[in-house]
Amino acid sequence: MSSKTNRQIVIAARPHGHARMSDFEFVERPLPVPGEGEVLTRNVLISIDPYQRNLMGNASSETPPIDLGQPMSGPTVAIVEQSRNPGFAVGDHVVAWSGWQQYGLSDGSDLRKIDARAAPLSTALGVLGHTGLTAWLGITKFMNPAPGGTFVVTAAAGSVGSLAAQLAKLRGHRVVGIAGGKEKVRYLTEELDLDGAVDYKAPDFARRLDAALPDGLDALLDNVGGTMFEALMPYFNHHAQIAIAGLISQYANPGAAPGPDHLPALLTSFLYRFIQVQGFAMPDHVASYPEFLAEVAPLVTQRKIKYNEEFVDGLDSIPAAFLRLYDGGNPNRGKLIARVG
Amino acid sequence: MSSKTNRQIVIAARPHGHARMSDFEFVERPLPVPGEGEVLTRNVLISIDPYQRNLMGNASSETPPIDLGQPMSGPTVAIVEQSRNPGFAVGDHVVAWSGWQQYGLSDGSDLRKIDARAAPLSTALGVLGHTGLTAWLGITKFMNPAPGGTFVVTAAAGSVGSLAAQLAKLRGHRVVGIAGGKEKVRYLTEELDLDGAVDYKAPDFARRLDAALPDGLDALLDNVGGTMFEALMPYFNHHAQIAIAGLISQYANPGAAPGPDHLPALLTSFLYRFIQVQGFAMPDHVASYPEFLAEVAPLVTQRKIKYNEEFVDGLDSIPAAFLRLYDGGNPNRGKLIARVG
Repeated sequence: MSSKTNRQIVIAARPHGHARMSDFEFVERPLPVPGEGEVLTRNVLISIDPYQRNLMGNASSETPPIDLGQPMSGPTVAIVEQSRNPGFAVGDHVVAWSGWQQYGLSDGSDLRKIDARAAPLSTALGVLGHTGLTAWLGITKFMNPAPGGTFVVTAAAGSVGSLAAQLAKLRGHRVVGIAGGKEKVRYLTEELDLDGAVDYKAPDFARRLDAALPDGLDALLDNVGGTMFEALMPYFNHHAQIAIAGLISQYANPGAAPGPDHLPALLTSFLYRFIQVQGFAMPDHVASYPEFLAEVAPLVTQRKIKYNEEFVDGLDSIPAAFLRLYDGGNPNRGKLIARVG
Repeated sequence: MSSKTNRQIVIAARPHGHARMSDFEFVERPLPVPGEGEVLTRNVLISIDPYQRNLMGNASSETPPIDLGQPMSGPTVAIVEQSRNPGFAVGDHVVAWSGWQQYGLSDGSDLRKIDARAAPLSTALGVLGHTGLTAWLGITKFMNPAPGGTFVVTAAAGSVGSLAAQLAKLRGHRVVGIAGGKEKVRYLTEELDLDGAVDYKAPDFARRLDAALPDGLDALLDNVGGTMFEALMPYFNHHAQIAIAGLISQYANPGAAPGPDHLPALLTSFLYRFIQVQGFAMPDHVASYPEFLAEVAPLVTQRKIKYNEEFVDGLDSIPAAFLRLYDGGNPNRGKLIARVG
């Protein structure tokens, strides 16, 4: 607190393919001074998310990357340190979008106050935060499959996937999760009580997938894309509903993929199986936070929804933890968060 | 009428790629005798449609092909010749699904009575028939774009496309049609009064498409698929709505297409542009005929909707006319119908 500087992790270089440590740089900048209407926040928890690769450039995202020399953007839990905005008082806990740095400056429009007594602060970055909202939006707003069918979730042990899978179970679907590694598959079936789980890293993945989907799939919440999506295409049932929440396998691969071209076969499946597909992202739907929290927060309190969080300590630990999201070295159970407070 | 035989065009061989004359055979079979509850109908008009390639085998369709030796299936306008079904009287005009033959036998469940005085009989196979219903379903049931945006229709001079384009105009969209050849493009802009039309056969198609879509596209009713769809992908706007009504470019090419693989890029566009895609086909929606006719039949009578029909004469003319649908030798203006009555 005595520091008069703001330590940041900035984008130092544009990655080609997966990011590397050398693409990040630690810098010290002067502590910003809030102007009229502005709020200075101090981060205590910082979210580390796969989609952040998209913000570094040479990525599949269609929005411009963060400028070189600027800090990585993303959600944090922060405490209001100084306020010249009547909506926020010193000591308020907020979810900010100030990214990988110690402090953030905001006009208040991107801050969301949270009650530090209602739930652990970390949940505001996961099961009750942006990843939870993403899962809930997919299940609730962008698909409406009839209960009783087979509902597939990819990256099902992740922060979005694990909530989506549990909400789908609560809505009466037969839920099959796909994840990488025996430990995640065990978590899905034993702890989340899913009806099936498939390890995409298993050498006989195709056979296991086939065994897990004897009646095809009626709904898919996809977080992965790429060859995983292509492996699932033969299982799309008539009138299947698909929501695209993320494409982790594609973020670092913006160029053309090698052939054959699977797009015509996908269009064929759309036409002959009357399939509905919808892409979405939560920033367009922050107005749904109250509706989302009204459903999911009580389920979390009552422990009817489980969630996992993995913590790393200190700002310095963030880049390596982020890179492990992509190399499989991360246990990657649920939400990855850096404690910096 | 004195004939006691039923002349049929049967599937003689499974095509590889596009169909050929040798894939069809003319046969004479005994005139069927209606049993209890059945109706014998005599075809007077027979529909010739691109999707029928799908029924011949080695095609992109996922339903089994017609057995070799059996007549091509499809809609016809027919007259009831004999009836042992209380729902139909001798002399009634019906739309049947009896295909490429002189007579058909039905239990009545696939017959739809039409009023021969209300509109020309041929319209029951086109603008007021299965292709019209397809166009109307796409515009009405499977997309809901805000008026004022750019609405693209592929195969826009065809039977489905020309009605879809005109209905989109009536709903307040800026409509751009894509079709092959100068004559069709002239028809789209001068006769159907579309806001733009692009000739996909022009050597500078890419430049023309770009010029016709300065603000991208907000809605797409696609009848073509394949490389046409891929050419349109860069123009999908945020929240674009896409309905897949047909895939004429793919019917004869069921195998893997050469690379690169465009599927990951399509998923990327879905996710980052919040795109909605829906495939559909009219056989699942015949219950919508009354609603469709209530809207479109008066528009046709009042000449607010234009339609084109091309006729060939006699059962013998059908295979060659069908093949011309694919080789571009057909004027292919609107609905292709054989007069056989």
